[in-house]
Amino acid sequence: MVKILLLNGPNLNRLGKREPAIYGHVTLTQLEENVRKQAEKEGFQLVSAQSNHEGEIIDMIHKAEDEGYGGIIMNPGAFTHYSYAIRDAVASISVPVVEVHISNIHAREEFRHQSVIAAETIGQIVGFGLFGYELALQAIIKNIKGVE
Amino acid sequence: MVKILLLNGPNLNRLGKREPAIYGHVTLTQLEENVRKQAEKEGFQLVSAQSNHEGEIIDMIHKAEDEGYGGIIMNPGAFTHYSYAIRDAVASISVPVVEVHISNIHAREEFRHQSVIAAETIGQIVGFGLFGYELALQAIIKNIKGVE
Amino acid sequence: MVKILLLNGPNLNRLGKREPAIYGHVTLTQLEENVRKQAEKEGFQLVSAQSNHEGEIIDMIHKAEDEGYGGIIMNPGAFTHYSYAIRDAVASISVPVVEVHISNIHAREEFRHQSVIAAETIGQIVGFGLFGYELALQAIIKNIKGVE
Amino acid sequence: MVKILLLNGPNLNRLGKREPAIYGHVTLTQLEENVRKQAEKEGFQLVSAQSNHEGEIIDMIHKAEDEGYGGIIMNPGAFTHYSYAIRDAVASISVPVVEVHISNIHAREEFRHQSVIAAETIGQIVGFGLFGYELALQAIIKNIKGVE
Amino acid sequence: MVKILLLNGPNLNRLGKREPAIYGHVTLTQLEENVRKQAEKEGFQLVSAQSNHEGEIIDMIHKAEDEGYGGIIMNPGAFTHYSYAIRDAVASISVPVVEVHISNIHAREEFRHQSVIAAETIGQIVGFGLFGYELALQAIIKNIKGVE
Amino acid sequence: MVKILLLNGPNLNRLGKREPAIYGHVTLTQLEENVRKQAEKEGFQLVSAQSNHEGEIIDMIHKAEDEGYGGIIMNPGAFTHYSYAIRDAVASISVPVVEVHISNIHAREEFRHQSVIAAETIGQIVGFGLFGYELALQAIIKNIKGVE
Amino acid sequence: MVKILLLNGPNLNRLGKREPAIYGHVTLTQLEENVRKQAEKEGFQLVSAQSNHEGEIIDMIHKAEDEGYGGIIMNPGAFTHYSYAIRDAVASISVPVVEVHISNIHAREEFRHQSVIAAETIGQIVGFGLFGYELALQAIIKNIKGVE
Amino acid sequence: MVKILLLNGPNLNRLGKREPAIYGHVTLTQLEENVRKQAEKEGFQLVSAQSNHEGEIIDMIHKAEDEGYGGIIMNPGAFTHYSYAIRDAVASISVPVVEVHISNIHAREEFRHQSVIAAETIGQIVGFGLFGYELALQAIIKNIKGVE
Amino acid sequence: MVKILLLNGPNLNRLGKREPAIYGHVTLTQLEENVRKQAEKEGFQLVSAQSNHEGEIIDMIHKAEDEGYGGIIMNPGAFTHYSYAIRDAVASISVPVVEVHISNIHAREEFRHQSVIAAETIGQIVGFGLFGYELALQAIIKNIKGVE
Amino acid sequence: MVKILLLNGPNLNRLGKREPAIYGHVTLTQLEENVRKQAEKEGFQLVSAQSNHEGEIIDMIHKAEDEGYGGIIMNPGAFTHYSYAIRDAVASISVPVVEVHISNIHAREEFRHQSVIAAETIGQIVGFGLFGYELALQAIIKNIKGVE
Amino acid sequence: MVKILLLNGPNLNRLGKREPAIYGHVTLTQLEENVRKQAEKEGFQLVSAQSNHEGEIIDMIHKAEDEGYGGIIMNPGAFTHYSYAIRDAVASISVPVVEVHISNIHAREEFRHQSVIAAETIGQIVGFGLFGYELALQAIIKNIKGVE
Amino acid sequence: MVKILLLNGPNLNRLGKREPAIYGHVTLTQLEENVRKQAEKEGFQLVSAQSNHEGEIIDMIHKAEDEGYGGIIMNPGAFTHYSYAIRDAVASISVPVVEVHISNIHAREEFRHQSVIAAETIGQIVGFGLFGYELALQAIIKNIKGVE
Repeated sequence: MVKILLLNGPNLNRLGKREPAIYGHVTLTQLEENVRKQAEKEGFQLVSAQSNHEGEIIDMIHKAEDEGYGGIIMNPGAFTHYSYAIRDAVASISVPVVEVHISNIHAREEFRHQSVIAAETIGQIVGFGLFGYELALQAIIKNIKGVE
Repeated sequence: MVKILLLNGPNLNRLGKREPAIYGHVTLTQLEENVRKQAEKEGFQLVSAQSNHEGEIIDMIHKAEDEGYGGIIMNPGAFTHYSYAIRDAVASISVPVVEVHISNIHAREEFRHQSVIAAETIGQIVGFGLFGYELALQAIIKNIKGVE
Repeated sequence: MVKILLLNGPNLNRLGKREPAIYGHVTLTQLEENVRKQAEKEGFQLVSAQSNHEGEIIDMIHKAEDEGYGGIIMNPGAFTHYSYAIRDAVASISVPVVEVHISNIHAREEFRHQSVIAAETIGQIVGFGLFGYELALQAIIKNIKGVE
Repeated sequence: MVKILLLNGPNLNRLGKREPAIYGHVTLTQLEENVRKQAEKEGFQLVSAQSNHEGEIIDMIHKAEDEGYGGIIMNPGAFTHYSYAIRDAVASISVPVVEVHISNIHAREEFRHQSVIAAETIGQIVGFGLFGYELALQAIIKNIKGVE
Repeated sequence: MVKILLLNGPNLNRLGKREPAIYGHVTLTQLEENVRKQAEKEGFQLVSAQSNHEGEIIDMIHKAEDEGYGGIIMNPGAFTHYSYAIRDAVASISVPVVEVHISNIHAREEFRHQSVIAAETIGQIVGFGLFGYELALQAIIKNIKGVE
Repeated sequence: MVKILLLNGPNLNRLGKREPAIYGHVTLTQLEENVRKQAEKEGFQLVSAQSNHEGEIIDMIHKAEDEGYGGIIMNPGAFTHYSYAIRDAVASISVPVVEVHISNIHAREEFRHQSVIAAETIGQIVGFGLFGYELALQAIIKNIKGVE
Repeated sequence: MVKILLLNGPNLNRLGKREPAIYGHVTLTQLEENVRKQAEKEGFQLVSAQSNHEGEIIDMIHKAEDEGYGGIIMNPGAFTHYSYAIRDAVASISVPVVEVHISNIHAREEFRHQSVIAAETIGQIVGFGLFGYELALQAIIKNIKGVE
Repeated sequence: MVKILLLNGPNLNRLGKREPAIYGHVTLTQLEENVRKQAEKEGFQLVSAQSNHEGEIIDMIHKAEDEGYGGIIMNPGAFTHYSYAIRDAVASISVPVVEVHISNIHAREEFRHQSVIAAETIGQIVGFGLFGYELALQAIIKNIKGVE
Repeated sequence: MVKILLLNGPNLNRLGKREPAIYGHVTLTQLEENVRKQAEKEGFQLVSAQSNHEGEIIDMIHKAEDEGYGGIIMNPGAFTHYSYAIRDAVASISVPVVEVHISNIHAREEFRHQSVIAAETIGQIVGFGLFGYELALQAIIKNIKGVE
Repeated sequence: MVKILLLNGPNLNRLGKREPAIYGHVTLTQLEENVRKQAEKEGFQLVSAQSNHEGEIIDMIHKAEDEGYGGIIMNPGAFTHYSYAIRDAVASISVPVVEVHISNIHAREEFRHQSVIAAETIGQIVGFGLFGYELALQAIIKNIKGVE
Repeated sequence: MVKILLLNGPNLNRLGKREPAIYGHVTLTQLEENVRKQAEKEGFQLVSAQSNHEGEIIDMIHKAEDEGYGGIIMNPGAFTHYSYAIRDAVASISVPVVEVHISNIHAREEFRHQSVIAAETIGQIVGFGLFGYELALQAIIKNIKGVE
Repeated sequence: MVKILLLNGPNLNRLGKREPAIYGHVTLTQLEENVRKQAEKEGFQLVSAQSNHEGEIIDMIHKAEDEGYGGIIMNPGAFTHYSYAIRDAVASISVPVVEVHISNIHAREEFRHQSVIAAETIGQIVGFGLFGYELALQAIIKNIKGVE
């Protein structure tokens, strides 16, 4: 069964604990479980991970390549805005990566830099809350299956 | 049956006619038909429109509000980068708008301005080819149904 | 009787329909009627027009010149920020133009470019709500009468 | 009788003495007298002041608040471009302020910074020569009377 | 006989009517006639068009492709400075485009943005008055004939 | 007894009169009295001054040097953002200066320039309300006593 | 007893080992001990930590929230200038944070970006050497006690 | 006897009291006396003034015009960098102004803005210490005498 | 017979030797010969020169003025982007100058500065390969003959 | 025997595994072995390390100081562009650091920031492939031996 | 007798030949003669040179050092704005340099870069026509004589 | 025997004569001799040249191509920062170029532009004093031998 890595970046372990007005009450564990179930229905195995450490995220991206993952769904959190190291990690592997953001970063975080990672991913899904993860799953599966 | 407007901007009438390496061989008519069918399966009516005229796009956005549309899927094409008038049109209505781009504009069009429209939409889907329209349809339906 | 053109740009046809907190409940038709009456009292004929189309606005500016209008009151809406074509149209005629904005754009729209049109007009009136149109009318009449 | 303060900034005491091509031959005293008469017709008392001293202008703005003025008409002159202190003074009072400029600063002074004061005023009138003061008087009276 | 499109943008319909110091007394109709005659001598058919509407210009560019034109001579007027939509239209066709400007824009319009269209054309001719259209005609014919 | 100068800049005489949500209800007189008492407990004499005049503030800074003050606590108000003259005054004396701001200027006033004075002071205290003055007093006393 | 976290960022473990001209001879351990003692006098327990790892700092900020700390004193070191991830961590908790810098960064590090963290903290103390930590302790205690 | 005004701006009253390494030990009074004597030798009367108040400097510039001065030598001090009000004052008079700076501001003050006043003066003398005032005197006399 | 100077700047002596994909196989000598012949047909004498030395180019521009040339065709090569000295040389003579570039610099050299010379020339011809020199010849002859 | 630290940053563990067109087929282990042998010939002990974690790199830089290393050869990878924390670590030690990059970053990565680390190193070697490490070894040995 | 070098840069050989409205009718030869005579009266030998070649100017600056000149008066012409090589030449010698400009460059050349040379000179004299050379001579003599 | 060109730019003829604190006491002649000997040991002939003239440097770069040199070692001096003409010369030849700088320009010359030449060279060696020339020699030989 082809594996997909669900990779969440810094502060996403706080999901559901604070700022429910923006992020809702679903915790990271529940989110991961939901996406895992949906993936299984489609015949894929979902492996989830979260880290506040830039280096660990790079290590996991490398490992996904070495262990033959079919794709990666990644929410890089704040690393989106400055981690050229994660960008290079994405560029250094052949596994396709879909970038997902829960809220509409274009509306809320305009003072920050652009995403420095986006150019190396195959696409981004932005602003649909947790439902964005389900869309991302569909997108990565679409990409893996190679259906135009 | 709730109506959804699929609104394509300048030069998208050339879809399938040129640059197939980037945009494939599907024509705008075929794309609109595909999205229409998918929408119907979900119980929605899809109305399609395309224009190279900024003013017509604004008129259609206003009309979507007046005729009670449930949502708008819009690919503003090159207007993305400078049409504050379309931005204001989106801001002036209560119908939710999802912005979609066929290619990964973060990777390909770096010399242009940011999207001046994105902040007024509920989200963006970028870089998944024509499949992005299907994701956009799901996103707008999700939004219309109001399911968190 | 000398004619004055009242020219409103994109989205101003929505006046009174939405965002009453900012723009009040007066519709565009009522506004145009009010200004028309005031103009007549002063002995001028007011002709009103609104368009979401940049090209139509340019056409009307040209036409005002060709048909011997005495002055133009223009609220260019979002075109204020990028339409060098309207700017050139204003520069290409001898009819004086007064620019009017309903809200205080200096306070609300700081992220946008400066007005690219203002330098070619004879003056601007900014931030007094719909009453600004009445002030603009007085200003253009003053200019037409040529009283220092 | 409600009082209105007419406050002119640096170098406006030179009015009528130099550069008549731009500013005409009317002196500051004559201008103040004209506006005063017009105000009285409307039932308001006009108090005039001019200073080349930033601090005195701030003091007068504070005093207008303390003495219950109904509004202020201010031409900040060159302070327009850098006096954040006057801006804060305007922000610190509840008396409404209308900003007026004799010439079209958008056309003539492009090399300078934006007005740093405008955002705290209720509106600006720009480019109509001395007649702009009369328009400003109407605007401030309109605001005081609170008629929408 | 191979067709060439002569396409003039916003405000060029005013040619010969105003600002003769800059643009002379030749009207647009006369200019079009002159270039048409010169084209016929070289064995080409010249079709002329002018519009103040960005969308119409895009439509005509598309149509030139669909109807097998050999080349386009375009003076985009003020659209030169911001119309990414026209740029995309030029990029979306295989018909070669020569950009022409009557006056030396580098000397007169420094405050504006660069030409956003030039990079997609095959060349520019700038500053030689109406004679520039004749040079442009030669340049596009040279390109069509493919003589190095 | 060593003297310390408490110097407040433009508009701080309005303290306690307006915007209590930001600045509270304490007046400038009460604030000065509180700091004076605290200074006396520590064995220092506090002299207070406030001015809306840039020149007076410079004069007082010079005078503090000439009369042998031990230190200055200064809230430059809006002069913070542009008064190079006050900066030079601070640079021209040997008396140490502590800069204090009531609110968190980094969060609230981002559109303004940096503090142009800070580099010449020995430190800044920002964002703790009126309590910041007490911290500033401690800091300046610490500096005067020369305890590392 | 309410706990306060003293959190030092990258390279602060070198304190007292190098550059004594700027930072003095006090080591990090001594500094932590001094602040701890002062905190105890005030009836608070101080817990100290230092890390060169961005991820560990985020983890500790989260943990401070989970374990009910009353406040955090943080010197983010060089992370000040680019770590949006730490900024988000601060924003994601309810524990108040005070930012402290030993030297006057406004004077010494002008070539770097602004603090990207400051806007989410309640205040900053800058430029008083190690004594700044004591001031920070007072500020955070003041905040915890809620005395206006 | 034609009068020349020697006008020194903020902080120049500290001349000779501090920073002798840069400015020497000559006081302002001595400098003024030296320039006065030199002027008399040339048959001119020198009137000296210094102020830390921007408004007073403007008043004196106006007064020089009204009282028929032949020229002004001005060292605007820190006002050089932001006082558009002084610039306007210089522009509003017909008396020629020479700008002088004691030290080489191009080498020492690179972080500041350009001189905003220089464009309205007839010339600048920069970097020759107090001797620059003597050169300025010669330059203004040359200008008054009108000898090419 | 009126003389025209054909002046090529740095590295154009390499023409035809390298990068034939961009510049073709025609050498500089052949190009000069072609333009010379064409000029003679029109009754003009063409004098050619090339230099990699900025100073020599300036000398030749001066000399063209002194020796009564009718016009100059200049390809300034890389000096286009920074030689204000050549710009001043062009400004200092009355001989008209046409600027020509072989390739479309707007498409290929976007990272460089604008042409600093163009504003002083009478026009530019850009992007038509070596044929551009022939167009430039026509343009300069047109200008010399003074036919509108 | 003096120790030299060879420190490779993020993603360099992928060396030889991907993008051989740019980086060749040599793995990191082989590279480290080659440099180690060369160092031993010169009488130095080479210790190699690689990490994707910014914090670990800082720790190793500190440790090199504490354990008396003679020099560091560092390829910071993507951290080159934003890690002010590594910069501070380099600045905080007395061990000399040579920065090396495999490819010519000036030609390939223009969209990124400058190296923020280079100013604190003693020199850089850029663009000579893996051979650059050998040059870096010579440079650091030269520096250690102190031979001018 | 101590030698002073008078060094004029590009296009100054045209002095007196063109643009007399700005530069007068005095030729470079006459100017040099005038300054030479004045220098001799003061007991100095003046050597004059002019070049349009950046390299020659650098050579002459070096030579002035090698041949023991007492000072240099230089008008770098357009090189003022970009020649870092001349700046380095000035920095590499011990002979003092005074920079002189005939016209007020602050008023006329605002679109250009700052002087890149000024920081390495001892002072500048700007805007007094050819008389500025005489002032420059006095300034350099004052510097040579070392009289404070 | 394969020839290598050692090319030094403006002001490097002053090497060893001034600023020995930065550049040491070795003269340019000695440096050239040292590098020549080292080259001969490796079986290459070294030809040295220095010029303060941009044009001469371009000529020599062209000549190196024409005479079949194997490589160029170049220190462009101040031309590094603005000579696009030298950049084009490097781009126009097939001989590989290594750029070398004696001091660490990233630490010392931050106010200048980036190297505009680096992107066309094969690599840079920066900051190792004169030893950098020896490293450059090895790098260019490595490149000539084509050993990976």
